[in-house]
Amino acid sequence: MFAPPVQNLIAELGRLPGIGQRTAQRLAFHLLRVSPEEAGALADAIREVKERIGACEVCFNLADAARCRICADERRDGGLICVVEEPGDVIPVERTHEFAGRYHVLGGALSPIDGVDPEHLRIDELYARVVSAEPPIREVVLATNPTTTGEATALHLAEGLRECAPEITVTRLASGLPIGADLEYADEVTLGRALVGRRVL
Amino acid sequence: MFAPPVQNLIAELGRLPGIGQRTAQRLAFHLLRVSPEEAGALADAIREVKERIGACEVCFNLADAARCRICADERRDGGLICVVEEPGDVIPVERTHEFAGRYHVLGGALSPIDGVDPEHLRIDELYARVVSAEPPIREVVLATNPTTTGEATALHLAEGLRECAPEITVTRLASGLPIGADLEYADEVTLGRALVGRRVL
Repeated sequence: MFAPPVQNLIAELGRLPGIGQRTAQRLAFHLLRVSPEEAGALADAIREVKERIGACEVCFNLADAARCRICADERRDGGLICVVEEPGDVIPVERTHEFAGRYHVLGGALSPIDGVDPEHLRIDELYARVVSAEPPIREVVLATNPTTTGEATALHLAEGLRECAPEITVTRLASGLPIGADLEYADEVTLGRALVGRRVL
Repeated sequence: MFAPPVQNLIAELGRLPGIGQRTAQRLAFHLLRVSPEEAGALADAIREVKERIGACEVCFNLADAARCRICADERRDGGLICVVEEPGDVIPVERTHEFAGRYHVLGGALSPIDGVDPEHLRIDELYARVVSAEPPIREVVLATNPTTTGEATALHLAEGLRECAPEITVTRLASGLPIGADLEYADEVTLGRALVGRRVL
Protein backbone atom coordinates (compact mmCIF):
# COMPACT_ATOMS: atom_id res chain seq x y z
CA MET A 1 0.00 0.00 0.00
CA PHE A 2 3.01 2.29 0.65
CA ALA A 3 5.87 3.00 -1.70
CA PRO A 4 8.90 0.78 -0.87
CA PRO A 5 10.98 3.55 0.79
CA VAL A 6 8.08 4.33 3.14
CA GLN A 7 7.52 0.65 3.91
CA ASN A 8 11.22 0.25 4.57
CA LEU A 9 11.30 3.21 6.97
CA ILE A 10 8.27 1.89 8.86
CA ALA A 11 9.95 -1.52 9.14
CA GLU A 12 13.21 0.00 10.42
CA LEU A 13 11.41 2.20 12.96
CA GLY A 14 9.37 -0.84 14.07
CA ARG A 15 12.59 -2.61 15.06
CA LEU A 16 13.16 -0.08 17.83
CA PRO A 17 12.16 -1.32 21.28
CA GLY A 18 8.65 -0.36 22.36
CA ILE A 19 7.78 0.94 18.88
CA GLY A 20 4.86 -1.03 17.41
CA GLN A 21 3.55 -0.99 13.85
CA ARG A 22 1.21 1.95 14.45
CA THR A 23 3.77 4.10 16.22
CA ALA A 24 6.31 3.29 13.51
CA GLN A 25 3.80 4.46 10.90
CA ARG A 26 3.10 7.64 12.85
CA LEU A 27 6.81 8.39 13.20
CA ALA A 28 7.40 7.67 9.49
CA PHE A 29 4.65 10.09 8.48
CA HIS A 30 6.12 12.67 10.81
CA LEU A 31 9.52 12.28 9.15
CA LEU A 32 7.86 12.58 5.74
CA ARG A 33 6.24 15.82 6.84
CA VAL A 34 9.27 17.61 8.33
CA SER A 35 11.98 19.40 6.34
CA PRO A 36 14.77 17.33 4.76
CA GLU A 37 17.16 19.12 7.18
CA GLU A 38 15.27 17.98 10.28
CA ALA A 39 14.99 14.38 9.08
CA GLY A 40 18.62 14.47 7.94
CA ALA A 41 19.72 15.65 11.39
CA LEU A 42 18.25 12.49 12.93
CA ALA A 43 19.87 10.24 10.31
CA ASP A 44 23.22 12.00 10.89
CA ALA A 45 22.89 11.71 14.67
CA ILE A 46 22.41 7.94 14.36
CA ARG A 47 25.41 7.57 12.05
CA GLU A 48 27.61 9.77 14.19
CA VAL A 49 26.82 8.00 17.43
CA LYS A 50 27.76 4.64 15.86
CA GLU A 51 30.97 6.07 14.45
CA ARG A 52 32.13 8.04 17.45
CA ILE A 53 30.85 6.21 20.53
CA GLY A 54 32.45 3.03 21.84
CA ALA A 55 32.94 1.34 25.20
CA CYS A 56 35.30 2.77 27.83
CA GLU A 57 38.36 0.51 28.08
CA VAL A 58 38.19 0.59 31.88
CA CYS A 59 34.50 0.47 32.85
CA PHE A 60 32.66 -0.31 29.54
CA ASN A 61 30.46 2.75 29.92
CA LEU A 62 29.79 4.71 26.71
CA ALA A 63 32.82 6.75 25.69
CA ASP A 64 33.84 9.03 22.82
CA ALA A 65 37.50 8.39 23.65
CA ALA A 66 39.48 5.41 25.02
CA ARG A 67 38.17 6.24 28.50
CA CYS A 68 34.74 7.60 29.41
CA ARG A 69 34.37 11.01 31.04
CA ILE A 70 33.98 9.52 34.50
CA CYS A 71 37.06 7.27 34.27
CA ALA A 72 39.02 10.20 32.82
CA ASP A 73 37.93 12.52 35.65
CA GLU A 74 40.76 12.66 38.22
CA ARG A 75 38.44 14.04 40.89
CA ARG A 76 36.41 10.78 41.03
CA ASP A 77 37.22 8.37 43.85
CA GLY A 78 39.09 5.45 42.27
CA GLY A 79 38.69 3.34 45.40
CA LEU A 80 34.93 3.02 44.97
CA ILE A 81 33.24 1.16 42.11
CA CYS A 82 29.52 1.02 41.36
CA VAL A 83 28.54 -2.01 39.26
CA VAL A 84 25.52 -1.48 36.98
CA GLU A 85 23.84 -3.57 34.30
CA GLU A 86 23.66 -1.12 31.39
CA PRO A 87 25.24 2.20 30.37
CA GLY A 88 21.82 3.80 30.87
CA ASP A 89 21.96 2.87 34.58
CA VAL A 90 24.91 5.21 35.15
CA ILE A 91 22.73 8.28 34.65
CA PRO A 92 20.20 7.72 37.46
CA VAL A 93 23.06 7.04 39.90
CA GLU A 94 24.87 10.19 38.74
CA ARG A 95 21.68 12.21 39.16
CA THR A 96 21.57 11.41 42.90
CA HIS A 97 24.89 13.31 43.40
CA GLU A 98 25.50 10.76 46.19
CA PHE A 99 28.19 8.76 44.41
CA ALA A 100 31.70 10.09 43.78
CA GLY A 101 33.35 6.84 42.67
CA ARG A 102 33.67 5.19 39.28
CA TYR A 103 31.52 2.61 37.47
CA HIS A 104 31.66 -0.84 35.95
CA VAL A 105 29.06 -1.64 33.28
CA LEU A 106 28.30 -5.37 33.04
CA GLY A 107 26.35 -5.22 29.78
CA GLY A 108 23.31 -6.98 31.24
CA ALA A 109 22.26 -9.30 34.03
CA LEU A 110 22.71 -13.05 34.42
CA SER A 111 19.76 -14.92 32.97
CA PRO A 112 20.55 -18.54 32.05
CA ILE A 113 17.11 -19.09 30.46
CA ASP A 114 17.80 -16.22 28.06
CA GLY A 115 21.29 -17.60 27.42
CA VAL A 116 23.06 -14.86 29.40
CA ASP A 117 25.83 -16.62 31.35
CA PRO A 118 28.74 -15.05 33.30
CA GLU A 119 31.02 -15.17 30.24
CA HIS A 120 28.61 -12.93 28.31
CA LEU A 121 28.96 -10.10 30.83
CA ARG A 122 32.00 -8.01 31.81
CA ILE A 123 32.43 -10.04 35.00
CA ASP A 124 35.98 -11.32 34.46
CA GLU A 125 36.93 -7.76 33.53
CA LEU A 126 35.52 -6.60 36.89
CA TYR A 127 37.54 -9.20 38.79
CA ALA A 128 40.70 -8.30 36.86
CA ARG A 129 40.05 -4.64 37.60
CA VAL A 130 39.53 -5.02 41.35
CA VAL A 131 42.67 -7.15 41.88
CA SER A 132 44.96 -4.86 39.88
CA ALA A 133 43.53 -1.37 40.54
CA GLU A 134 45.90 1.34 41.68
CA PRO A 135 44.98 2.98 44.06
CA PRO A 136 43.38 -0.18 45.48
CA ILE A 137 39.61 -0.50 45.50
CA ARG A 138 38.00 -0.30 48.96
CA GLU A 139 34.39 -0.93 48.09
CA VAL A 140 32.27 -2.33 45.26
CA VAL A 141 28.62 -1.23 45.28
CA LEU A 142 26.41 -3.73 43.45
CA ALA A 143 23.74 -1.59 41.80
CA THR A 144 22.14 -4.17 39.52
CA ASN A 145 18.36 -3.89 39.32
CA PRO A 146 16.20 -5.19 42.21
CA THR A 147 14.75 -7.85 39.87
CA THR A 148 15.21 -11.62 39.81
CA THR A 149 18.05 -11.43 37.29
CA GLY A 150 19.62 -8.37 38.92
CA GLU A 151 19.55 -10.01 42.36
CA ALA A 152 21.04 -13.24 40.99
CA THR A 153 23.80 -11.22 39.32
CA ALA A 154 24.53 -9.36 42.56
CA LEU A 155 24.78 -12.63 44.52
CA HIS A 156 27.05 -14.14 41.87
CA LEU A 157 29.32 -11.08 41.92
CA ALA A 158 29.41 -10.92 45.73
CA GLU A 159 30.63 -14.52 45.83
CA GLY A 160 33.18 -14.01 43.05
CA LEU A 161 34.54 -10.83 44.62
CA ARG A 162 34.86 -12.49 48.02
CA GLU A 163 37.02 -15.17 46.38
CA CYS A 164 39.29 -12.98 44.29
CA ALA A 165 39.54 -9.95 46.59
CA PRO A 166 38.38 -10.81 50.13
CA GLU A 167 39.68 -7.51 51.55
CA ILE A 168 37.19 -5.44 49.49
CA THR A 169 33.86 -4.44 51.03
CA VAL A 170 30.98 -5.49 48.77
CA THR A 171 27.69 -3.64 49.28
CA ARG A 172 24.26 -3.74 47.66
CA LEU A 173 21.79 -0.90 47.07
CA ALA A 174 19.14 -0.79 49.82
CA SER A 175 15.71 -2.13 48.95
CA GLY A 176 12.64 -0.69 50.63
CA LEU A 177 9.79 1.72 50.24
CA PRO A 178 10.32 4.44 47.65
CA ILE A 179 10.23 7.98 49.07
CA GLY A 180 6.69 9.32 48.86
CA ALA A 181 5.15 5.83 48.83
CA ASP A 182 2.09 4.84 50.81
CA LEU A 183 2.25 1.72 53.03
CA GLU A 184 -1.29 0.86 52.06
CA TYR A 185 -0.32 0.42 48.43
CA ALA A 186 3.15 -1.09 48.90
CA ASP A 187 3.59 -4.60 47.50
CA GLU A 188 4.47 -7.21 50.10
CA VAL A 189 7.92 -7.99 48.70
CA THR A 190 9.01 -4.35 48.87
CA LEU A 191 7.48 -3.90 52.33
CA GLY A 192 9.14 -7.15 53.48
CA ARG A 193 12.50 -5.86 52.27
CA ALA A 194 11.90 -2.55 54.02
CA LEU A 195 11.24 -4.43 57.28
CA VAL A 196 14.25 -6.71 56.96
CA GLY A 197 16.45 -3.71 56.14
CA ARG A 198 15.08 -1.45 58.91
CA ARG A 199 17.56 0.96 60.42
CA VAL A 200 18.08 2.29 63.95
CA LEU A 201 17.26 5.99 64.16
CA MET B 1 26.66 13.68 31.44
CA PHE B 2 26.68 12.04 27.99
CA ALA B 3 29.22 12.49 25.24
CA PRO B 4 28.01 15.11 22.68
CA PRO B 5 27.07 12.58 19.94
CA VAL B 6 24.86 10.70 22.42
CA GLN B 7 23.28 13.92 23.69
CA ASN B 8 22.66 14.98 20.11
CA LEU B 9 21.00 11.67 19.21
CA ILE B 10 18.76 11.84 22.30
CA ALA B 11 17.77 15.42 21.35
CA GLU B 12 16.97 14.42 17.76
CA LEU B 13 14.93 11.39 18.84
CA GLY B 14 13.12 13.57 21.38
CA ARG B 15 11.85 15.79 18.53
CA LEU B 16 9.74 12.91 17.19
CA PRO B 17 6.06 13.13 18.15
CA GLY B 18 5.12 11.23 21.30
CA ILE B 19 8.76 10.52 22.14
CA GLY B 20 9.67 12.05 25.51
CA GLN B 21 13.09 12.47 27.10
CA ARG B 22 13.09 9.02 28.72
CA THR B 23 11.96 7.16 25.61
CA ALA B 24 14.49 9.08 23.52
CA GLN B 25 17.21 7.97 25.95
CA ARG B 26 16.02 4.35 25.78
CA LEU B 27 15.96 4.40 21.97
CA ALA B 28 19.42 6.02 21.85
CA PHE B 29 20.86 3.31 24.12
CA HIS B 30 19.22 0.68 21.94
CA LEU B 31 20.85 2.17 18.84
CA LEU B 32 24.19 2.24 20.68
CA ARG B 33 23.81 -1.45 21.48
CA VAL B 34 22.85 -2.78 18.03
CA SER B 35 25.27 -3.45 15.16
CA PRO B 36 26.43 -0.51 13.02
CA GLU B 37 24.58 -2.17 10.11
CA GLU B 38 21.24 -2.18 11.93
CA ALA B 39 21.59 1.44 13.07
CA GLY B 40 22.82 2.40 9.61
CA ALA B 41 19.75 0.80 8.01
CA LEU B 42 17.51 3.15 9.98
CA ALA B 43 19.61 6.20 9.09
CA ASP B 44 19.54 5.16 5.41
CA ALA B 45 15.79 4.56 5.47
CA ILE B 46 15.23 8.10 6.77
CA ARG B 47 17.50 9.61 4.11
CA GLU B 48 15.98 7.55 1.32
CA VAL B 49 12.40 8.39 2.19
CA LYS B 50 13.21 12.10 2.12
CA GLU B 51 15.01 11.77 -1.21
CA ARG B 52 12.56 9.53 -3.02
CA ILE B 53 9.12 10.35 -1.63
CA GLY B 54 7.20 13.45 -2.62
CA ALA B 55 3.56 14.49 -3.02
CA CYS B 56 1.37 13.10 -5.82
CA GLU B 57 0.71 15.88 -8.35
CA VAL B 58 -3.00 14.98 -8.47
CA CYS B 59 -4.05 14.07 -4.93
CA PHE B 60 -1.05 15.09 -2.72
CA ASN B 61 -0.80 11.61 -1.26
CA LEU B 62 2.75 10.26 -0.78
CA ALA B 63 4.29 9.20 -4.09
CA ASP B 64 7.60 7.86 -5.35
CA ALA B 65 6.74 9.13 -8.86
CA ALA B 66 4.80 12.11 -10.25
CA ARG B 67 1.54 10.30 -9.42
CA CYS B 68 0.85 8.06 -6.43
CA ARG B 69 0.00 4.41 -6.93
CA ILE B 70 -3.71 5.01 -6.48
CA CYS B 71 -3.89 7.89 -8.98
CA ALA B 72 -1.79 5.82 -11.42
CA ASP B 73 -4.08 2.79 -11.05
CA GLU B 74 -6.48 2.78 -14.03
CA ARG B 75 -8.86 0.39 -12.24
CA ARG B 76 -9.75 2.97 -9.59
CA ASP B 77 -13.02 4.87 -10.04
CA GLY B 78 -12.07 8.39 -11.12
CA GLY B 79 -15.60 9.66 -10.51
CA LEU B 80 -15.34 9.22 -6.75
CA ILE B 81 -12.98 11.19 -4.49
CA CYS B 82 -12.37 10.66 -0.79
CA VAL B 83 -11.00 13.76 0.96
CA VAL B 84 -8.74 13.05 3.96
CA GLU B 85 -6.62 15.23 6.22
CA GLU B 86 -3.25 13.47 6.09
CA PRO B 87 -1.49 10.86 3.89
CA GLY B 88 -1.71 8.48 6.85
CA ASP B 89 -5.50 8.62 6.65
CA VAL B 90 -5.50 6.93 3.24
CA ILE B 91 -4.40 3.62 4.75
CA PRO B 92 -7.31 3.01 7.14
CA VAL B 93 -9.77 3.79 4.32
CA GLU B 94 -7.92 1.43 1.95
CA ARG B 95 -7.97 -1.29 4.62
CA THR B 96 -11.77 -1.32 4.63
CA HIS B 97 -11.79 -2.50 0.95
CA GLU B 98 -15.04 -0.50 0.70
CA PHE B 99 -13.66 2.34 -1.36
CA ALA B 100 -12.69 2.01 -5.03
CA GLY B 101 -12.28 5.70 -5.86
CA ARG B 102 -9.32 8.06 -5.57
CA TYR B 103 -8.19 10.42 -2.80
CA HIS B 104 -7.45 14.03 -2.08
CA VAL B 105 -5.08 14.77 0.80
CA LEU B 106 -5.67 18.19 2.35
CA GLY B 107 -2.51 18.31 4.44
CA GLY B 108 -4.35 18.99 7.71
CA ALA B 109 -7.61 20.39 9.02
CA LEU B 110 -8.79 23.98 9.36
CA SER B 111 -7.86 25.40 12.74
CA PRO B 112 -7.74 29.21 12.82
CA ILE B 113 -6.37 29.30 16.42
CA ASP B 114 -3.39 27.22 15.26
CA GLY B 115 -3.01 29.45 12.21
CA VAL B 116 -4.32 26.83 9.76
CA ASP B 117 -6.53 28.73 7.33
CA PRO B 118 -8.03 27.47 4.01
CA GLU B 119 -5.02 28.73 2.02
CA HIS B 120 -2.69 26.45 4.03
CA LEU B 121 -4.54 23.32 2.90
CA ARG B 122 -4.97 21.82 -0.58
CA ILE B 123 -8.52 23.17 -0.80
CA ASP B 124 -8.20 25.30 -3.94
CA GLU B 125 -6.49 22.32 -5.58
CA LEU B 126 -9.54 20.19 -4.69
CA TYR B 127 -11.93 22.73 -6.23
CA ALA B 128 -9.78 22.97 -9.37
CA ARG B 129 -9.71 19.19 -9.58
CA VAL B 130 -13.47 18.65 -9.26
CA VAL B 131 -14.38 21.27 -11.89
CA SER B 132 -11.87 20.02 -14.49
CA ALA B 133 -11.82 16.24 -13.88
CA GLU B 134 -12.28 13.96 -16.86
CA PRO B 135 -14.24 11.68 -16.48
CA PRO B 136 -16.36 14.06 -14.34
CA ILE B 137 -16.54 13.51 -10.59
CA ARG B 138 -19.90 12.24 -9.32
CA GLU B 139 -19.25 12.21 -5.57
CA VAL B 140 -16.86 13.66 -3.02
CA VAL B 141 -16.71 11.79 0.32
CA LEU B 142 -15.51 14.05 3.12
CA ALA B 143 -13.49 11.75 5.39
CA THR B 144 -11.86 14.34 7.65
CA ASN B 145 -11.66 13.25 11.30
CA PRO B 146 -14.81 13.41 13.48
CA THR B 147 -13.14 16.10 15.63
CA THR B 148 -13.90 19.82 16.00
CA THR B 149 -11.35 20.79 13.36
CA GLY B 150 -12.24 17.89 11.06
CA GLU B 151 -15.96 18.71 11.24
CA ALA B 152 -15.28 22.41 10.59
CA THR B 153 -13.16 21.46 7.58
CA ALA B 154 -15.91 19.17 6.23
CA LEU B 155 -18.52 21.94 6.56
CA HIS B 156 -16.22 24.45 4.85
CA LEU B 157 -15.57 22.03 1.97
CA ALA B 158 -19.24 21.09 1.60
CA GLU B 159 -20.09 24.77 1.17
CA GLY B 160 -17.23 25.43 -1.23
CA LEU B 161 -18.03 22.38 -3.35
CA ARG B 162 -21.71 23.35 -3.52
CA GLU B 163 -20.64 26.71 -4.95
CA CYS B 164 -18.09 25.54 -7.50
CA ALA B 165 -19.68 22.23 -8.55
CA PRO B 166 -23.34 22.07 -7.47
CA GLU B 167 -23.96 18.91 -9.56
CA ILE B 168 -21.54 16.83 -7.43
CA THR B 169 -22.91 14.81 -4.50
CA VAL B 170 -20.98 15.64 -1.30
CA THR B 171 -21.14 13.04 1.47
CA ARG B 172 -19.68 12.71 4.95
CA LEU B 173 -18.52 9.57 6.79
CA ALA B 174 -21.22 8.28 9.15
CA SER B 175 -20.72 8.93 12.86
CA GLY B 176 -22.08 6.48 15.41
CA LEU B 177 -21.20 3.65 17.73
CA PRO B 178 -18.08 1.72 16.76
CA ILE B 179 -18.68 -1.96 16.00
CA GLY B 180 -18.24 -4.00 19.17
CA ALA B 181 -18.96 -1.02 21.44
CA ASP B 182 -21.13 -1.17 24.54
CA LEU B 183 -23.96 1.35 24.90
CA GLU B 184 -23.27 1.58 28.61
CA TYR B 185 -19.79 2.97 27.97
CA ALA B 186 -20.55 5.08 24.88
CA ASP B 187 -19.96 8.83 25.29
CA GLU B 188 -23.08 10.94 24.84
CA VAL B 189 -21.85 12.77 21.74
CA THR B 190 -21.21 9.51 19.87
CA LEU B 191 -24.50 7.99 21.05
CA GLY B 192 -26.30 11.22 20.07
CA ARG B 193 -24.80 11.01 16.58
CA ALA B 194 -25.80 7.34 16.34
CA LEU B 195 -29.40 8.29 17.20
CA VAL B 196 -29.56 11.21 14.75
CA GLY B 197 -28.09 9.00 12.02
CA ARG B 198 -30.30 5.95 12.72
CA ARG B 199 -31.23 3.90 9.66
CA VAL B 200 -34.36 1.99 8.66
CA LEU B 201 -33.77 -1.78 8.68
